[in-house]
Amino acid sequence: MSAPQAAPISREERAARARQVFEHLPEPLDALVLFDDQYIFYYSGFAFFPTERPVALIIGADGHRTLFVPRLEREHAQQTAEAEEVADYPEFPGRPHPMQQLAALLERRGLASARLGADHDGYPSVMGYDGPALSEALGAVQLGAVRVVRVPRALDHQMSLKSEAEVALIRESARWGAHAHRLLQAYTRPGESEHAAEGRATREATDAMAAALGPSYRGQNKWISGAVALYRGQIGPYSALPHAMTTGATFQPGDTLVTGAGAAVWGYVSELERTMFLGEPGAEQRRFFGHMLNLQDVAFEALKPGATCASVDEAVRAYYQREGLQAHWRHHVGHGLGQRIHESPFLDFGDDRVLETGMVLSVEPGLYVPGLGGFRHSDTVLITSGGIELLTDYPRDLDSLTLPA
Amino acid sequence: MSAPQAAPISREERAARARQVFEHLPEPLDALVLFDDQYIFYYSGFAFFPTERPVALIIGADGHRTLFVPRLEREHAQQTAEAEEVADYPEFPGRPHPMQQLAALLERRGLASARLGADHDGYPSVMGYDGPALSEALGAVQLGAVRVVRVPRALDHQMSLKSEAEVALIRESARWGAHAHRLLQAYTRPGESEHAAEGRATREATDAMAAALGPSYRGQNKWISGAVALYRGQIGPYSALPHAMTTGATFQPGDTLVTGAGAAVWGYVSELERTMFLGEPGAEQRRFFGHMLNLQDVAFEALKPGATCASVDEAVRAYYQREGLQAHWRHHVGHGLGQRIHESPFLDFGDDRVLETGMVLSVEPGLYVPGLGGFRHSDTVLITSGGIELLTDYPRDLDSLTLPA
Repeated sequence: MSAPQAAPISREERAARARQVFEHLPEPLDALVLFDDQYIFYYSGFAFFPTERPVALIIGADGHRTLFVPRLEREHAQQTAEAEEVADYPEFPGRPHPMQQLAALLERRGLASARLGADHDGYPSVMGYDGPALSEALGAVQLGAVRVVRVPRALDHQMSLKSEAEVALIRESARWGAHAHRLLQAYTRPGESEHAAEGRATREATDAMAAALGPSYRGQNKWISGAVALYRGQIGPYSALPHAMTTGATFQPGDTLVTGAGAAVWGYVSELERTMFLGEPGAEQRRFFGHMLNLQDVAFEALKPGATCASVDEAVRAYYQREGLQAHWRHHVGHGLGQRIHESPFLDFGDDRVLETGMVLSVEPGLYVPGLGGFRHSDTVLITSGGIELLTDYPRDLDSLTLPA
Repeated sequence: MSAPQAAPISREERAARARQVFEHLPEPLDALVLFDDQYIFYYSGFAFFPTERPVALIIGADGHRTLFVPRLEREHAQQTAEAEEVADYPEFPGRPHPMQQLAALLERRGLASARLGADHDGYPSVMGYDGPALSEALGAVQLGAVRVVRVPRALDHQMSLKSEAEVALIRESARWGAHAHRLLQAYTRPGESEHAAEGRATREATDAMAAALGPSYRGQNKWISGAVALYRGQIGPYSALPHAMTTGATFQPGDTLVTGAGAAVWGYVSELERTMFLGEPGAEQRRFFGHMLNLQDVAFEALKPGATCASVDEAVRAYYQREGLQAHWRHHVGHGLGQRIHESPFLDFGDDRVLETGMVLSVEPGLYVPGLGGFRHSDTVLITSGGIELLTDYPRDLDSLTLPA
């Protein structure tokens, strides 16, 4: 009855993440240096537009956070980041190079010969960035003693264990994703264009969400803005391409459709996808739709704390084999999500990680039939002590998803 | 008079890029392995949604292209990529790991002990990806002989030299960016919200562009979808933050406003930004606006083939110093653009690269005054034998940019 009200992640929660991250690391380290905007937002709440100018977050073993930004982000960081300190450098490439200035800052902190953890050994070459690895820049400061250990897997493990506040945000996202999806379903008619139906549903759902969540609402997500419901080109025969790109199609009677919906709520997202038919489906469409529901049920049954990710994929793959559907397999069962639209762990044959209470994952085994279409529902689930709780709430039966043609 | 009609980059042009890339490399290499979606699109035309599943493009010294994709992208790649061959692996993380499968593929091509160039030594850890470096995976195949050389700077140099076809696409983008900007200007009124004005301008401009460019139009850009005109939160005092994020503001008389507009046209973008005032500007607003225009003029004068990027920034910085404006400096003069919204080279003190005919850059020196606002126009220019040609065409004078309040 009384689900916690969705609200931004508190300052206390982010500070606790920064203190507790060291418990997740595979070995004792003196400090962390993080370059990826998603980790920086997770530990400091700084939502920014990543460019060729490196941004780094240094976390000391006591949880002390120093945000290192280009001059143009100084005031923005001071006003919005939850970091105990903001340091800045003039520009990229500038002179000396920002990575050298970061190395000098670490040296001043007594960390030049420390054992450092990092998501990435330096800043990735995005948007024309070019520069030395962090280990190279530190090597110039003091040879020999430096060691940079890549620990993204440990960071991702911490991120995968969602708090109540995070689950409340994902649930709120799912609520608005479902609203957008209902509108998309209502606006999908023969002769209408993909862009028009998506645009109207997305716009109206975003307006409704912004009005409901009030002026303090922020999306703060890199992949989703507002509330969205889309086809991404998965219309008619193109629905057989799991990651088709939009082609500006017009809906035709008989189309198999695969949707995607979600919403960005203070940094968090959810995933809802449905297979729909425009007009009464034929026998083959019904057959694959039924198998697809069964595949998702097999996955739901297999998901529980203590099970490995691989075991869920194996249970689902056994159904494909049993029913002779291997030719229609294209991808694993699902992926973690939360801040990112895809996160680890993965419900995949090759992922031995163990499911834990608090993990949030998509469940979306699919069937793809060239010439006919794609068949995939995706729901977002929370791993609970009893198994799973569905965070997405939307009809999944054939009748509810058959549109008038 | 007869600017070439904007059309998608031809298959011949992309194939020539793949053959010619080796001429740009700093040393002779046997093959290239590229992981970044922007390089993959540049050389193969494959527009895809990058996730935790690695995609790689192998380019042989003769320009032969092999696209390595996860199973779920096989048909999509076969139908849309301009590669002589498509190879696929089942899934990520799968077993064996995709990077091991890529190493095995390189071995079968006789490239396991070759000298390889790469944008990045392996796939970057995005969306929960985790795996060995390419050099590590190759090392397991055959110890010793392997060498992976990072060459993003050379690739970026090739990308920076735009063909006529590319300039035509950027010019088309600029045309629609200007259209969106005119609409944004028309819909910005006191009491109206940022979201409403942006949404209406963006929607109408995108519809007009899609109608004009016809059903074959595709955006194919990672950062911009359709035609857009936005404030990104740079409204009133917040305009003093160069990279503010949207705050859902309502326009007030007296606001200083900083805009951004562009459009995605078959992968290419442009950049148009303007400083505007809601109601008659005060003396301080006029003074900074005037200096900002002068700064941009200094940059326009300094831009010509043979000049270094640094020399342009130095000329502009000299103006800040002469006029005592250093406290209001936040960033360099501009950046390359084309496929990416930011590309190298950078009009920056620390960038010694030489400007060449065919480069396309933003020119956007700014002034930022806490409490008052930000002052920045951005125009997109082409370096020509005579100096520059403006690809953006929009009024930049005070009267044209003063809105009724």
